Amino acid sequence: MEAEKTVTACVLIIGNEILSGRTQDVNLNYLAKGLNEAGVRLREARVIPDVPDVIVATVNEARAKFDYVFTTGGIGPTHDDITNECVAKAFGVPLILHEEAKRILEDRYRARGMELNEARLRMAHVPQGATLVLNPVSGAPGFRMENVYVMAGVPQIMQAMFEGVKDELRGGRPVLSRAISCGLAEGQLAKGLGEIQSRYPDIDIGSYPWYRRGAYGVSLVLRSPDERRLGLASDEVAGLVRGLGGTPNDE
Amino acid sequence: MEAEKTVTACVLIIGNEILSGRTQDVNLNYLAKGLNEAGVRLREARVIPDVPDVIVATVNEARAKFDYVFTTGGIGPTHDDITNECVAKAFGVPLILHEEAKRILEDRYRARGMELNEARLRMAHVPQGATLVLNPVSGAPGFRMENVYVMAGVPQIMQAMFEGVKDELRGGRPVLSRAISCGLAEGQLAKGLGEIQSRYPDIDIGSYPWYRRGAYGVSLVLRSPDERRLGLASDEVAGLVRGLGGTPNDE
Repeated sequence: MEAEKTVTACVLIIGNEILSGRTQDVNLNYLAKGLNEAGVRLREARVIPDVPDVIVATVNEARAKFDYVFTTGGIGPTHDDITNECVAKAFGVPLILHEEAKRILEDRYRARGMELNEARLRMAHVPQGATLVLNPVSGAPGFRMENVYVMAGVPQIMQAMFEGVKDELRGGRPVLSRAISCGLAEGQLAKGLGEIQSRYPDIDIGSYPWYRRGAYGVSLVLRSPDERRLGLASDEVAGLVRGLGGTPNDE
Repeated sequence: MEAEKTVTACVLIIGNEILSGRTQDVNLNYLAKGLNEAGVRLREARVIPDVPDVIVATVNEARAKFDYVFTTGGIGPTHDDITNECVAKAFGVPLILHEEAKRILEDRYRARGMELNEARLRMAHVPQGATLVLNPVSGAPGFRMENVYVMAGVPQIMQAMFEGVKDELRGGRPVLSRAISCGLAEGQLAKGLGEIQSRYPDIDIGSYPWYRRGAYGVSLVLRSPDERRLGLASDEVAGLVRGLGGTPNDE
């Protein structure tokens, strides 16, 4: 195996609406998949409330600990949109009017016959030194400040923003995965699976039971950036399933 | 307003499958709603990997900081199920065989003609001093250790476990909410909404834009345990919407 730096990320989901149960978050799953494709390992995610001190402290903890941080939520025009000012505070820089962001908003509102009022102009303010993350859906941009990407919470907008910056991420080798499903019980597989895991400490082997329409089974998921080792371990797992009388199915 | 302690909670979602994007978490949303009904405020959620040091440190941080901690995931029979031993380590107590848990598993496997092997018996081990959280779905229990509830990751099982312990939670007054939807843009409402928020610092007012089939609008969500104040603030928000030419709809 070549020695290569593992590139890590943390996602911060900022929003009372997730913590109150009003909204089911779907951004984490989208980012998890996208980061994986970019060779970046998502190591942690946190859902935090719209509370300035919590946002500032969490951004600072995460940006020191992980290579990349992605935030979602809190960048609109209303009083509860405080992510931009909190990230500025976390970096100890002022929040400034970004001329390009202002032009984007001016053009957009003019084209729609709408007013660029004070509240909307808040969305053109970013921490000093930040570069914009463009928003092809609704105009108001996010931004990147060093290793922190600040994105919208509305899924369509967040996805468009992330796709726009994905290519600039410097990841390691993407993690490949193989999933083998079978109708055995986890408890039957556990011993043999643990033995395979011991022989392949470099492969992340997960076991996930499922229940569907009265039937049960387990999905065995192997993950590694090393295709050859992944293949070897997967063959052993398939052999284990067959040895116990099961039928291994690729998922 | 009567002075009353706010009871807080943190949810820890333990599992590589969430961070890899393989699985869309739905447990957080279920717990968020359920805790709200119990008068417990969910203040933070974290998704963390199946890494012992991370689990131990996060459990210790969360249990010191919040009144309740709820974990999901990692309590099955396979090598990647390490939550029980990590929670024992976090509390500095040994992991012991729980006789009642063992009986539950013996009965269950005997009834199904299945073997209670060593791997399955792992599921009857809990930190010394823990009490069981029953699992009516598949037998293997979770547990409560002081203010930490340890539950399964499979949603059906997690939900059944949570419903079984919900009544024993000592919450404060439940947070009530009112949601008003309208076809206005956030940027139109922002100024007036901010003014209402300033006059009602005790009410949490959130503004959430939506896009549906080419139409857009915003949901304004007000939350507070105080029904009277909530009503007053909601009336003001509805008045703001009407004053701007919109139609406030209760959601």
